[in-house]
Amino acid sequence: MLKRKKISVIGGGFTGATTAFLIVQKELGDVVLVDIPQMENPVKGKALDMFEASPVQGFDAKITGTSDYADTKDSDIVVITAGVARKPGMSRDDLVQTNQKIMENVTKEIVKYSPNAVLIVLTNPVDAMTYTVYQTSGFPKNRVIGQSGVLDTARFRAFVAEELDVSVKDVTGFVLGGHGDEMVPLVRYAYAGGIPLETLLPKERLDKIVERTRKGGGEIVNLLGNGSAYYAPAAALTEMVEAIAKDQRRILPAVAYLEGEYGYNGIYLGIPVILGGNGLEKIIELDLTPEEKAALDKSAASVRKVMDALA
Amino acid sequence: MLKRKKISVIGGGFTGATTAFLIVQKELGDVVLVDIPQMENPVKGKALDMFEASPVQGFDAKITGTSDYADTKDSDIVVITAGVARKPGMSRDDLVQTNQKIMENVTKEIVKYSPNAVLIVLTNPVDAMTYTVYQTSGFPKNRVIGQSGVLDTARFRAFVAEELDVSVKDVTGFVLGGHGDEMVPLVRYAYAGGIPLETLLPKERLDKIVERTRKGGGEIVNLLGNGSAYYAPAAALTEMVEAIAKDQRRILPAVAYLEGEYGYNGIYLGIPVILGGNGLEKIIELDLTPEEKAALDKSAASVRKVMDALA
Amino acid sequence: MLKRKKISVIGGGFTGATTAFLIVQKELGDVVLVDIPQMENPVKGKALDMFEASPVQGFDAKITGTSDYADTKDSDIVVITAGVARKPGMSRDDLVQTNQKIMENVTKEIVKYSPNAVLIVLTNPVDAMTYTVYQTSGFPKNRVIGQSGVLDTARFRAFVAEELDVSVKDVTGFVLGGHGDEMVPLVRYAYAGGIPLETLLPKERLDKIVERTRKGGGEIVNLLGNGSAYYAPAAALTEMVEAIAKDQRRILPAVAYLEGEYGYNGIYLGIPVILGGNGLEKIIELDLTPEEKAALDKSAASVRKVMDALA
Amino acid sequence: MLKRKKISVIGGGFTGATTAFLIVQKELGDVVLVDIPQMENPVKGKALDMFEASPVQGFDAKITGTSDYADTKDSDIVVITAGVARKPGMSRDDLVQTNQKIMENVTKEIVKYSPNAVLIVLTNPVDAMTYTVYQTSGFPKNRVIGQSGVLDTARFRAFVAEELDVSVKDVTGFVLGGHGDEMVPLVRYAYAGGIPLETLLPKERLDKIVERTRKGGGEIVNLLGNGSAYYAPAAALTEMVEAIAKDQRRILPAVAYLEGEYGYNGIYLGIPVILGGNGLEKIIELDLTPEEKAALDKSAASVRKVMDALA
Repeated sequence: MLKRKKISVIGGGFTGATTAFLIVQKELGDVVLVDIPQMENPVKGKALDMFEASPVQGFDAKITGTSDYADTKDSDIVVITAGVARKPGMSRDDLVQTNQKIMENVTKEIVKYSPNAVLIVLTNPVDAMTYTVYQTSGFPKNRVIGQSGVLDTARFRAFVAEELDVSVKDVTGFVLGGHGDEMVPLVRYAYAGGIPLETLLPKERLDKIVERTRKGGGEIVNLLGNGSAYYAPAAALTEMVEAIAKDQRRILPAVAYLEGEYGYNGIYLGIPVILGGNGLEKIIELDLTPEEKAALDKSAASVRKVMDALA
Repeated sequence: MLKRKKISVIGGGFTGATTAFLIVQKELGDVVLVDIPQMENPVKGKALDMFEASPVQGFDAKITGTSDYADTKDSDIVVITAGVARKPGMSRDDLVQTNQKIMENVTKEIVKYSPNAVLIVLTNPVDAMTYTVYQTSGFPKNRVIGQSGVLDTARFRAFVAEELDVSVKDVTGFVLGGHGDEMVPLVRYAYAGGIPLETLLPKERLDKIVERTRKGGGEIVNLLGNGSAYYAPAAALTEMVEAIAKDQRRILPAVAYLEGEYGYNGIYLGIPVILGGNGLEKIIELDLTPEEKAALDKSAASVRKVMDALA
Repeated sequence: MLKRKKISVIGGGFTGATTAFLIVQKELGDVVLVDIPQMENPVKGKALDMFEASPVQGFDAKITGTSDYADTKDSDIVVITAGVARKPGMSRDDLVQTNQKIMENVTKEIVKYSPNAVLIVLTNPVDAMTYTVYQTSGFPKNRVIGQSGVLDTARFRAFVAEELDVSVKDVTGFVLGGHGDEMVPLVRYAYAGGIPLETLLPKERLDKIVERTRKGGGEIVNLLGNGSAYYAPAAALTEMVEAIAKDQRRILPAVAYLEGEYGYNGIYLGIPVILGGNGLEKIIELDLTPEEKAALDKSAASVRKVMDALA
Repeated sequence: MLKRKKISVIGGGFTGATTAFLIVQKELGDVVLVDIPQMENPVKGKALDMFEASPVQGFDAKITGTSDYADTKDSDIVVITAGVARKPGMSRDDLVQTNQKIMENVTKEIVKYSPNAVLIVLTNPVDAMTYTVYQTSGFPKNRVIGQSGVLDTARFRAFVAEELDVSVKDVTGFVLGGHGDEMVPLVRYAYAGGIPLETLLPKERLDKIVERTRKGGGEIVNLLGNGSAYYAPAAALTEMVEAIAKDQRRILPAVAYLEGEYGYNGIYLGIPVILGGNGLEKIIELDLTPEEKAALDKSAASVRKVMDALA
């Protein structure tokens, strides 16, 4: 019997809900949107609203909201967006430990019901949180990855396309290392229509775009005034889910567990990988210039520091 | 020169923003998302977030946020989602007059910059608000329509598909009259795979589904606790925009100005129409049973009552 | 591990090849296009040409041509388009027996390598050929179905949409019984935007459309001069494949094995069914008027006559 | 009033017909498929067959076959696939002059009815034929372009994706100069996931892929035995049509008229351009290595030689 894939999204906030919607729109599988018991009705409401959109948008997928992890049973892929954002007066370490606890609880429940799932983590700080999920789950490293580079690259591509006034379809980019400020954009690996950006844009403009990409999350936070980005993060998660659900063997940046690659060990860091039916199919090792390697070292050190804050 | 269509969405709340996103996803045109000056930064933030999703979702469209109607200049289609929801202590007439004023202000600005646009109204009470937009704009009736039936029908279809455990693609339905409680579902015009629902479901079950459809908006409001549906309303608006932008000549229910059709005059009411490149291309008149006609009369009377409350 | 579906298409002529292309375009799975050894190079060429289109059309799927059934191993779905067309001087019985032999040979090979596949037959005369495949395969009846009604209905819908000058998306129709001349169109189950066609078109026009639908295959044959229709047949097959591959539970007409339904026994006949992950999920029994039942009886008798010609 | 785009495809053979189908599938516009009077019925048949597929494939577009250029009136875009293939005993110059005459006749008819259209030429030898269409039409150079590089690049990308076992979506490539044997692949501008192919594949493998790309058309011809590729060529044409119809400003290789760019004058040659609503929006000039420049010179010389054979 041919069955639909089952994909659970943990955390029914804007990013989680939008991710759920983009997944069902593409008929990648049935989706279970999970939140804490106090938020059960709102996620049920969002799921119902999405289902009511399905006849018009033309997709067939079950989409349900729940606070009961039993409903996630036998998920093929689980996306984790749960967690709190840093609030005024909260130290960075407080944030880390709060989200760490959430990751641990969430992961135990996921593992109980879906021992074969691929897990994709979005919660920040994403490198450390993916590590926590990895440790708690006991899953092999190919089935625990984090999202950061697809989003960072998407922003970079959008800014370049706007600057050059060309289709976003033709701009490609590449980001290594941590998310946001710690991002290591490999500008020499970025192109428009296959043409190196360094030959299309003056260094000054390119530097500004890189800087804007680094601060991309903050730019949205400042504009919204109350909340953070969710359309582009959800699109990024959906692209990773699609690559795995359809075994596409996409080459995408992902937060992956390193055991010697790039000279690091026992750390989750953003690097290019192949995503397919097994989750992480392969880590791609790039030759780096000394400057790039130094920037990646700095990014890795920063991730280590966050990991040290884990309880 | 071949140019993209330009579509403005007035009101950058959840429904307006989601509508904007669904429109650019389908590359129906460039979108301008408009809100009041105090909300200018949030709509800029939402538009930027959507644009940053475009490289990953693979669509080419400009999407901008603004509070300046000059940016909507030469729109082909304008969707109006602006307006307030009824708050505790607010009388129904207060609501009508508050939204009436908003419609008047918004419409004057739209007309100033886009004298040839087709206008689609979502704001509630939608029949009276579409009438207000019609009067304020001075546009011919084919270029001022309201949304209600596509959404009501989508909900009905979703519930039926769930009940029968079949694809939403194969369930069709039909709704006349006002939105929500005043809706007149024509069950004898509803089918699954072309088979009349009356032969597939016991009357009791069908009645329950009709009743649930009528209360569909309220069901979501109750679940969300804080806010109302936006995925399905946005999908409904997007389908209407697509029908017009691509001149598809879709047969869809819409809130249309009647001048004798169905025996009514000078009133906006939900009836089946053909939507195409001119907006409303044609009103379709159905033969109604006496019971259906009576229900439609009641619905029309209810719309008249709201129109009487207009300032 | 999440794997792509595997779909084999037997017969690499225009219909088979176009079906293969439409399937990979939708990323429904990897496709193996099979033909006889003399045609191995041509199907390899077609498959390669399709694969070379994939970077531009944006789909990820393996598509291969072969004459070796071992390459079809573990297919989830197998579409059978192999067979000859009636040539001048060939009696109808000759055609039946020639294609019967082809079905038997093809089916034995399919079954050897894909004992769990769902089989969809297009080869004419489709009712008798589906019966042959059913008997040869030894598969349960839910895994052996034929195509005829989706194509006949598509033609009917296209003609009605053209006549009414409305979107093809809004016209639905329904066909029972055999393919082509033996088709029993249920006009009272056909609608535009949910409105019964009988109220939208004069009987005379509707009769002409029904007659044109019946002769739809011949109309294309006459125009092409050399060959028969393949775009619409391939689209019809693809819709059935998609319904099964994605477990959509679509309500579609299909050639199904009847054991008492509609009063027939031991015969394959076109009737409405639910198609999902198990292939045929359910047969839907409609109430027929005496006239409709008489027409269906005639259609069934005609199928019996062809079955009698089977060796 | 919002109208659909109108796109005419001249030449109703496999490539022309498949292009027409891919265009309507994407709802890029209504399509008129044109062939010579003797082929009028076959193109009518193909167009009808495609239209009959539309209810199932879910697209709204008129698609008609004709031999009367009056039916192409006011086309926005015209794709020219007409022409003969080289037959045994036919000299290269014979081929050039035969197709030149066809281009002249076809272009005069197109220009008479669609003076504002953008013309895209596929007919071989494409550089000289595009030049002929340019001269005959009297159109500005931005509205007369040829296809070669999108197809060559698609083949290159497909072969690389297969070799690396990664998604075709992540492989990009770049081709300059003439079509086929004269192609100048810029391997240093080719990437998988943004990573230069030169670092992912040994030179030997890459050379073989380049060579296979050069001979890509011949490989299909040899396999088919009787005919040439049409899926990938049609996909390439459709991508160019889409870029123009939707004003996407894609960066794509195209056969463009050079007036000094790359050091050439008065010649049509394959180079990277921006395609948008005006047709060719901009020519992109790349820095070439001496080797690349030498290869391009050779390609240009070869085009000149064909141009010399023009009557």
